[in-house]
Amino acid sequence: MIILGIDPGIAIVGYGILEHAGNKFRVIDYGAITTPAGQKLSDRLRDIYESVNILIERHHPDQFAIEELFFNTNVKTAISVAHGRGVAILAATVQGLPVFEYTPLQVKQSVTGYGRADKAQVQRMVKTLLGLPEVPKPDDVADALAIAICHGNTSRMLNFDV
Amino acid sequence: MIILGIDPGIAIVGYGILEHAGNKFRVIDYGAITTPAGQKLSDRLRDIYESVNILIERHHPDQFAIEELFFNTNVKTAISVAHGRGVAILAATVQGLPVFEYTPLQVKQSVTGYGRADKAQVQRMVKTLLGLPEVPKPDDVADALAIAICHGNTSRMLNFDV
Repeated sequence: MIILGIDPGIAIVGYGILEHAGNKFRVIDYGAITTPAGQKLSDRLRDIYESVNILIERHHPDQFAIEELFFNTNVKTAISVAHGRGVAILAATVQGLPVFEYTPLQVKQSVTGYGRADKAQVQRMVKTLLGLPEVPKPDDVADALAIAICHGNTSRMLNFDV
Repeated sequence: MIILGIDPGIAIVGYGILEHAGNKFRVIDYGAITTPAGQKLSDRLRDIYESVNILIERHHPDQFAIEELFFNTNVKTAISVAHGRGVAILAATVQGLPVFEYTPLQVKQSVTGYGRADKAQVQRMVKTLLGLPEVPKPDDVADALAIAICHGNTSRMLNFDV
């Protein structure tokens, strides 16, 4: 199964694409889609949508996993990120991928086994689990890989792996 | 110029399509796109996206106007509505329509000439200005028509009418 994990955003959308078989992960691609702050919202949304589409066309993921948004964050930021999250989910749906959503707590627990792990611990586990030479930067990329790992682990436990 | 006005949402997306020439409006279509609460977010976003696309293909609007979101609303609701707003803006952008955003205050002022007008006053003005037999229901539809009127008035003043 190939998983596309997305850390949603409007300025930076992290992505991580992993192949998952049994309890093993293989890294296919990771990085960030970025849109400049000065760009119009409509153009930023189109760029995010098109970039997610390109990732799907290039790597043919089977499933799509995305982080849920905090509700305790700044409302203005939350609204902005939710616009970007909406078009990322849309790209996956239009291309026929099933969409799975995970809370930040679920991601932490799945990756580190510990719900109170801090960001640095999650990032170190991502690096170790995937055998990467270093923690991917920016944080959004490591977060996207963590979401893909969380989905792989959850799929295996729930037996909806393909 | 044909204007597509949208009152953004996830459960109910109001739309109003007006032809605007000089200081006159002609009603082309109005209504609401609805998605059931029990439906998955990904399916709701796809349905909104496809419905906005169908409206654009059917009526060939020249410009797209949408209300900005309140920042003082419930964060969970704001996030939910912002997902829907993102895909509505995306549909317009992918189809090449310029996107214009107006605050609720701008819409009220433009439609009634009075920024402290209440919802009922705005709705009555929409009915009067467009010569409708009654106020369109639900409120989201009247709001979408108000946004289209606001854009028509603003375009005329700023001379970017086509």
